[in-house]
Amino acid sequence: MTPELNLEALWSVTYGLYVVTSHAEGKSNGQIANTVVQVTAEPVRIAVSISKNNFTHGFIAKSGAFGVSVLDENTPMTFIGLFGFKSGRDIDKLSQVAFTRGVTGCPLVTENALSIFDARVFAQVDAGTHTVFFADVLHAEIVRKGNPLTYAHYQQVKKGKTPKNAPTYQKPTSISEKEEQKP
Amino acid sequence: MTPELNLEALWSVTYGLYVVTSHAEGKSNGQIANTVVQVTAEPVRIAVSISKNNFTHGFIAKSGAFGVSVLDENTPMTFIGLFGFKSGRDIDKLSQVAFTRGVTGCPLVTENALSIFDARVFAQVDAGTHTVFFADVLHAEIVRKGNPLTYAHYQQVKKGKTPKNAPTYQKPTSISEKEEQKP
Repeated sequence: MTPELNLEALWSVTYGLYVVTSHAEGKSNGQIANTVVQVTAEPVRIAVSISKNNFTHGFIAKSGAFGVSVLDENTPMTFIGLFGFKSGRDIDKLSQVAFTRGVTGCPLVTENALSIFDARVFAQVDAGTHTVFFADVLHAEIVRKGNPLTYAHYQQVKKGKTPKNAPTYQKPTSISEKEEQKP
Repeated sequence: MTPELNLEALWSVTYGLYVVTSHAEGKSNGQIANTVVQVTAEPVRIAVSISKNNFTHGFIAKSGAFGVSVLDENTPMTFIGLFGFKSGRDIDKLSQVAFTRGVTGCPLVTENALSIFDARVFAQVDAGTHTVFFADVLHAEIVRKGNPLTYAHYQQVKKGKTPKNAPTYQKPTSISEKEEQKP
């Protein structure tokens, strides 16, 4: 075979959409992530890929812990925009949403969440532009019943865009990067 | 907060369904996996969590390569049963399906596939019962247009079960493990 790298082929991989938070040095922050996966059942362990450019990355690296909120399909775009297209370097995101505090100290966002997880990092992989954090789940709680927001639904129904630091980011062909990064 | 570990909370995490293959020492094998994720965009890198008990695990560990097929929503249950509930220790799974051979030597199953990836491992994490393999994607190709099979669709619409070695496995409460493992 002649190898090719058709980036659109990667678009068929299925993801959900999550808020990933952390707390370090007295401050909390959070961001949108699509790469949360459960990697083992016993014990319950999860992993997530986070861009080294993202503000939350430093919080997780320092604290060795992160929180996850599984988003409801009905999550408003303004909420996703707050966590996905604004930086905690500029604003205090957590002051604008409802959350509880996990045993790790991480804020667990309950607003628009179906489930929340509180997790302690036990390993990490330097994947280049991103670090993949592996964590033991210390707390897993159902907040409400509903359908999880999928990445496909976010893109196809909500017409949401992909920020530059997402693992699934594709360089825009017809619009500028600046425009691409707006919520 | 009082920590709890409600395993049902983990069920809200979204996954697709994939055939993951490998080739080592002149033999090929493949299995179903739900944990394929893209971890970086530049270069294109993916990861997958594979049970140490699965026959394919040894193939990937030996060859340092694996193939991925993103399954079509219309994939028949018999096909999923072949890769998900039978062992390559007993049968030659690849002799029963259409595939092409990647540059790594891995078989890339084209039958019921929307996309295929050929990938070379660059790192791995021992997560306990499972190893998470990280790989550079050398080849990514669209096989056909269609809707990707999601794990939720597999469970809710196709009424598919979860084998014991899946990262998302839950101990059955009302049926025996033996029964649970049937396709």
